Amino acid sequence: MTAGAVQETLAALDLVDHHCHGAVTDDLDRAGFESLLTEGEAWPGVSPFDTPVGLAVRRHCAPLLDLPRHAPVDAYLARRAELGAAEVNRRFLRAAGTGVFCVDTGHAPHRATSPGELAGAAGAVAYEVVRLEGVAEAVAAGGVEPDAYAEAFRTAAWEAVGRPGVVGVKSVAAYRTGFDLDPARPSPGRVTEAARRWLARGGRLEDPVLVRHLLWTAVDLGRPLQLHTGFGDSDIRLHRVDPARLTDWLHLTAGTIPVLLLHCWPYQRQAAYLSAVFERVYFDVGLTLHHVGPARAGAILAEALEITPFRKLLYSSDAYGLAEFHHLGALAFRQGLAGLLRERLAADEMSLPDALRLARWAGRDNARRVYRLPGGPADDG
Amino acid sequence: MTAGAVQETLAALDLVDHHCHGAVTDDLDRAGFESLLTEGEAWPGVSPFDTPVGLAVRRHCAPLLDLPRHAPVDAYLARRAELGAAEVNRRFLRAAGTGVFCVDTGHAPHRATSPGELAGAAGAVAYEVVRLEGVAEAVAAGGVEPDAYAEAFRTAAWEAVGRPGVVGVKSVAAYRTGFDLDPARPSPGRVTEAARRWLARGGRLEDPVLVRHLLWTAVDLGRPLQLHTGFGDSDIRLHRVDPARLTDWLHLTAGTIPVLLLHCWPYQRQAAYLSAVFERVYFDVGLTLHHVGPARAGAILAEALEITPFRKLLYSSDAYGLAEFHHLGALAFRQGLAGLLRERLAADEMSLPDALRLARWAGRDNARRVYRLPGGPADDG
Amino acid sequence: MTAGAVQETLAALDLVDHHCHGAVTDDLDRAGFESLLTEGEAWPGVSPFDTPVGLAVRRHCAPLLDLPRHAPVDAYLARRAELGAAEVNRRFLRAAGTGVFCVDTGHAPHRATSPGELAGAAGAVAYEVVRLEGVAEAVAAGGVEPDAYAEAFRTAAWEAVGRPGVVGVKSVAAYRTGFDLDPARPSPGRVTEAARRWLARGGRLEDPVLVRHLLWTAVDLGRPLQLHTGFGDSDIRLHRVDPARLTDWLHLTAGTIPVLLLHCWPYQRQAAYLSAVFERVYFDVGLTLHHVGPARAGAILAEALEITPFRKLLYSSDAYGLAEFHHLGALAFRQGLAGLLRERLAADEMSLPDALRLARWAGRDNARRVYRLPGGPADDG
Repeated sequence: MTAGAVQETLAALDLVDHHCHGAVTDDLDRAGFESLLTEGEAWPGVSPFDTPVGLAVRRHCAPLLDLPRHAPVDAYLARRAELGAAEVNRRFLRAAGTGVFCVDTGHAPHRATSPGELAGAAGAVAYEVVRLEGVAEAVAAGGVEPDAYAEAFRTAAWEAVGRPGVVGVKSVAAYRTGFDLDPARPSPGRVTEAARRWLARGGRLEDPVLVRHLLWTAVDLGRPLQLHTGFGDSDIRLHRVDPARLTDWLHLTAGTIPVLLLHCWPYQRQAAYLSAVFERVYFDVGLTLHHVGPARAGAILAEALEITPFRKLLYSSDAYGLAEFHHLGALAFRQGLAGLLRERLAADEMSLPDALRLARWAGRDNARRVYRLPGGPADDG
Repeated sequence: MTAGAVQETLAALDLVDHHCHGAVTDDLDRAGFESLLTEGEAWPGVSPFDTPVGLAVRRHCAPLLDLPRHAPVDAYLARRAELGAAEVNRRFLRAAGTGVFCVDTGHAPHRATSPGELAGAAGAVAYEVVRLEGVAEAVAAGGVEPDAYAEAFRTAAWEAVGRPGVVGVKSVAAYRTGFDLDPARPSPGRVTEAARRWLARGGRLEDPVLVRHLLWTAVDLGRPLQLHTGFGDSDIRLHRVDPARLTDWLHLTAGTIPVLLLHCWPYQRQAAYLSAVFERVYFDVGLTLHHVGPARAGAILAEALEITPFRKLLYSSDAYGLAEFHHLGALAFRQGLAGLLRERLAADEMSLPDALRLARWAGRDNARRVYRLPGGPADDG
Repeated sequence: MTAGAVQETLAALDLVDHHCHGAVTDDLDRAGFESLLTEGEAWPGVSPFDTPVGLAVRRHCAPLLDLPRHAPVDAYLARRAELGAAEVNRRFLRAAGTGVFCVDTGHAPHRATSPGELAGAAGAVAYEVVRLEGVAEAVAAGGVEPDAYAEAFRTAAWEAVGRPGVVGVKSVAAYRTGFDLDPARPSPGRVTEAARRWLARGGRLEDPVLVRHLLWTAVDLGRPLQLHTGFGDSDIRLHRVDPARLTDWLHLTAGTIPVLLLHCWPYQRQAAYLSAVFERVYFDVGLTLHHVGPARAGAILAEALEITPFRKLLYSSDAYGLAEFHHLGALAFRQGLAGLLRERLAADEMSLPDALRLARWAGRDNARRVYRLPGGPADDG
């Protein structure tokens, strides 16, 4: 009965997916679908379906397209095309059972749902997360003098976070420099000098001084800051995005903004450590969950929860492009956490009320609290 | 029957807890208890009880205070206050079933049991481990000329290890510099120069030259050296305390003193590797065991034992302050290891005599051997 | 039934062991056997049999010498001596059920089977892998002017890979410099200058410029390149051989040769990441499998497969010296993978055809494909 209660609670929980992206709105051919299925690329002779996430799609998504479990790839793609992107998105987004999406709108190589469209298709509420590198790059693209860059970026960032529905900001510093940064706030002179080099050269913001400046500007904004850490595409240098390398910066910024470490794999234990010793550090294992699938999500969550205060773990899907991922992330989280809690209950290592509280906190209430979403404090008991 | 034999052997084993601290002797209010429950701090609105170790205390410690399992926090703290620190300490220390405590007396922000008091309350034997940073800082506090520092520290360290009951030394170099040190013994001239800077400035010993000098002085002392590695409070830079970073120093000091890597999480595999390739390297997963609790101790021990010579793993609690931790560490070790060995026996991957030997070695005899404690050689078969 | 099918398929699979060494052909006394049993050394009072691999030998190898499971060490060694090296090797090599061995012939401190002898004893086919450091050191030993070194090494390497039966090359850069190398191809001038220093000094090739030059020469050869990563003997600095540190070099060499990351433990997740985002990166958990034994191989493989394209994991034993290891590696791989797949099937997380395909790919067909071995394309469906 207790085991059932955990599973039912998690199955029914209106998750807060505190970090995700839109779903592609165009119909996808095989190449288009496969390229979204992998953090790598689609390589000749190696199908992205022959991966843990590919198996999970065929197992857990096919039935939502009225196909048998483990449906063949061709049948899956044919049925997906037949239904059309809008219907496919609607089915997976509804099935996710997510009540709130916090949507990072800064990564958009494809035409994808806006937060409002995502919410509409899902029958949910959507908020927006502003990617600060995008704000800075728009400032540069708009034309600015080097000595006016800092102020222009600050102004644009304040405007962005002042828009209705914006609940936080995000940085992809992990992709641009990694975390071996001088943790100190750079002086105005150094920012101007770095802006001069960048504005002359153009391209992505990846100057270490400007990345530091961006992170410190995030502190000034006072909003929760999401930081990509760990696993991503080949642009990452994995050993340089161990979140433990943020420790000096976390000391310097202690007592300011909440910092939310995203993804983290394979450094979930390092992220857990930081969340245990820094008051305002939180983390999730998003992106990882759908890539490993429900078969392995419990093992990842078990590592993520080893020493972790239960107020510090959040749920995110980090779904991008395929609405399958909004669903799979939620499913892997629910099943993985339910399995873990059932084991602990069976061993009498926790009580049922504790298990249910942990599930509600991680899946929903911690995010409500950090982002001050409606419904937050009421569930805080 | 074989499964039962392992469990019984581990349950009855008079453990050697080769690294722990004293238990606080004052009565603790809620804030005092909570601050000792976490490696972080007690934060507003986030109870340190809402953690794996908090659940483990309510599950496994409450019954020893005559409360039901999973007792509420308020009831737990009220009953603890009612019994008083002395009785609480006595109950948990007896329940630990530990035969020998090796007590690090160098970390004492609270009034806590001396080794003798700990032993008395537990019905056990206690030895002392001398923290070398404390010795060096006392030398500095006592007043010394820079060019006399090295000799004064050496003399004080020899005196300290010559005291009755001292079985080893410890360094917290991990907290002071991390392990990216020049591994070579520093020259006398450089030590004097570094001492001049330190003695003028005061504060903790954290000059890299003096930390190296301290480690090499430990080599000269010829006693087992405990090194904090991995997990700790926010003073740690986790990525700089991977024990693999000690490899060059381990090569230079090979054939001298036993080196005992403490805690190690999340680098228990790295510690295991070092213990497998360096004759005099040993390790434990202390501190981790009570933080993860019995529910997860088996998983940590399974990683710790993957490639590890059975003579190289030791038990420690690293309990500090709360006698609950002296008990929980022992319980998590016994249950975690018993679970792991039962699985291996059930799969016929080891024989019962091998399982029992491994349990006795890790829980007791390896420490007896390394520290040359009474009873050591007799159990060495 | 499905569970049985996976186990039977894996038990019957003619594995490709894509990286191993020869088996010692001399009879071994206790000291000789023990020194080969460990990546460390045999230490006084600490038997290398008291390790996970030691238990695995007594459990899984003793029956092949007509002894009971968990036979005592003395009985094992006596029976081994009685049978003689040739018969012992024949028994274990046959039992391995390996169809193809790719033999690294560059590490030969003992008299050991040639690839042909290994194949003969096993009833298998053997190919050769050329260790490039050995080629370079032979060039140096043969006498060469610094400004002719690059060309002489290149010529010798081309000759080596042109020999019949050679299917790839290997580098132990991990042992010589670790992976924190400048990833760029060094200029001819710098190579000459570095060669001048090396040729004057002699000894192993471990100059960082020459190690880089060796890796880039491997790119020019166009053959699959095996790279030692992770776990090895005490010569390794484990934190410097995290394969993620190869990322810059993998970017620069993308689209050229297949790169096969060997061993990887404890960085199997980092290796998996690289295999997921770089088209030509593959990996295995060889060496680890027999050291952890069948009891723990499934756990290692589960981490190795978390996000891994099924075309990217290969099998190797990395057996050296003891034919027990050629057998144990294969057994641990078969049993570990079968256990993992059975669990996934039981949870209905994959279909039986998918499980069988994954098993055949990882155990045999991926290696056939990468090394273009006979039988490769036919199994490629």
